[in-house]
Amino acid sequence: MRTLSECQEIINQAFLEMNLPEEPANLFDPLRYVLRLGGKRIRPSLVLMACNVFSETIEDAIYPALAMEVFHNFTLVHDDIMDNALLRRGRPTVHTKWNRNTGILSGDAMVIKSFELLTHVSQGFMPELLALFCRTALKVCEGQQYDMDFETRKEISLDEYLKMIELKTSALIAASLKTGAVIGGAGKNDAEHLYEFGRNVGIAFQIQDDYLDLYADPLIFGKNIGNDIVANKKTILFALATQTAQGKVKRELMHWLESKEFNRIEKINAVKAIYDKLGIREQIIRYIKHYHETGVSHLKRIAVSESQKDELLKVSDFLLVRNE
Amino acid sequence: MRTLSECQEIINQAFLEMNLPEEPANLFDPLRYVLRLGGKRIRPSLVLMACNVFSETIEDAIYPALAMEVFHNFTLVHDDIMDNALLRRGRPTVHTKWNRNTGILSGDAMVIKSFELLTHVSQGFMPELLALFCRTALKVCEGQQYDMDFETRKEISLDEYLKMIELKTSALIAASLKTGAVIGGAGKNDAEHLYEFGRNVGIAFQIQDDYLDLYADPLIFGKNIGNDIVANKKTILFALATQTAQGKVKRELMHWLESKEFNRIEKINAVKAIYDKLGIREQIIRYIKHYHETGVSHLKRIAVSESQKDELLKVSDFLLVRNE
Repeated sequence: MRTLSECQEIINQAFLEMNLPEEPANLFDPLRYVLRLGGKRIRPSLVLMACNVFSETIEDAIYPALAMEVFHNFTLVHDDIMDNALLRRGRPTVHTKWNRNTGILSGDAMVIKSFELLTHVSQGFMPELLALFCRTALKVCEGQQYDMDFETRKEISLDEYLKMIELKTSALIAASLKTGAVIGGAGKNDAEHLYEFGRNVGIAFQIQDDYLDLYADPLIFGKNIGNDIVANKKTILFALATQTAQGKVKRELMHWLESKEFNRIEKINAVKAIYDKLGIREQIIRYIKHYHETGVSHLKRIAVSESQKDELLKVSDFLLVRNE
Repeated sequence: MRTLSECQEIINQAFLEMNLPEEPANLFDPLRYVLRLGGKRIRPSLVLMACNVFSETIEDAIYPALAMEVFHNFTLVHDDIMDNALLRRGRPTVHTKWNRNTGILSGDAMVIKSFELLTHVSQGFMPELLALFCRTALKVCEGQQYDMDFETRKEISLDEYLKMIELKTSALIAASLKTGAVIGGAGKNDAEHLYEFGRNVGIAFQIQDDYLDLYADPLIFGKNIGNDIVANKKTILFALATQTAQGKVKRELMHWLESKEFNRIEKINAVKAIYDKLGIREQIIRYIKHYHETGVSHLKRIAVSESQKDELLKVSDFLLVRNE
């Protein structure tokens, strides 16, 4: 079975060999730039690994794998414009390095390119995989829209949060796994179990991302702690806290959320203390564990030998114990 | 044979019946808004009419026809952001009515939706039509990029202009016709002739668009004359004039192109007088005629009875004699 790092290598190599037109340079240079910024190549690697669970050869899964990564990178380019983000993976974002219009248009070219890459699957799989990809791509847009809608909201419920991250993050991870499974020749049930594995692990992964923003070891995490609190970002911590807090604690929480002028460290410490009172950290660890275990239970139910699932199991463990 | 207006009616009806999710409203309301702004529905009607040339039933062509129109409208939404356009079809543009981020994201949802609509073709046609659609969609982005690149250029050649409009405008018209032809069961040669019909008529149509900006009867045209001259827009008039002018005339032209402060009417009249000296108007009429006739010659070579081509012939005449 191919390991994650073997699959990452295959993907990086395939991107190096991918032909993109030279002209117009202002359209295709940003594509080359973004696709060579790196990243962990999780989604395309999952396509290959899922295929590999059911098939020794994984060559047919390479183009669809690239499709997932190009689509994912398209969302990053456009999200960075919407969020006015200056940096991505430590380098200038496309709209910063070029300009906003170039970011919009080269993002458009990327989403089209992702569909083009997907059309390299064999004709028999095409209707199913295209329908899945379209449905998933639209979900990602819906998730981004909910995320933007949340910015102007005072409170969000846990259910709203979970729906948003399922759309924005975990749908594409799940679809990557299912796409690989279908190409590898998985039966309907097995493909669905891999989808559910990805959907649940994807949710756990995103919850962990929120968790780490506050509770990670800053030396390992490599960035400041508490940015989400400073920005009132609608994370699962935020959702659980606004939903759980009552009386005086709730008023104190809302005071901090509504403050326009505050000391950064003071706000982080105050909100963190409220989270502690409410037992948010423990709740979140339970949620991560729950979704992780649910995901793995789907992996276990796939009708192949355990050794064939080992590498995927390792990926989910790798994704979910990064910093503890 | 269905007429253009019958096809337009079918398309408008299909859009009314098209199911779009209600939520998130900020994502899908702009889609509904744009798709109900109207427009001439030329591209989807051409899909249906091209299908009708080869087949009595055109039902299978409706979804792909909608795909072309949704894609076209996606390009309008994103182009309007890039051009800072306030109005589209006399109504506020999406980014004006909502905001820039909504314009970006709902445009993204539209391009995905266009692919989703296209996947409703029968499996046998899917690889060919998807490949054509991807290639065409990328061309449209390339054309838009060249158009933006031209904004900072002092001169452009006729060839550069023709390449740009072929990518930005006529590729989608040509692909609409070919898509309909393929679904209608056309042979390879006939489908290619319809493509070439559309490609040439599309070029003629865009050249005419440039022509009308200066030479149309303002009462019929419904907007001010000479906007392109005021904005130094890189039209075919601009390309021919900068390419043809020499000596004193060239210096006079460049003076007007480089002026930062000028009287609008004075600039229009001065540049128009230069165009007259250079015989630009007559040249352009010849180009329109040339591309129109080349397009029609391809229509004539299609191996069906003349009466089956009549409605498409009428469309090309309708598109190309609007204002003379």
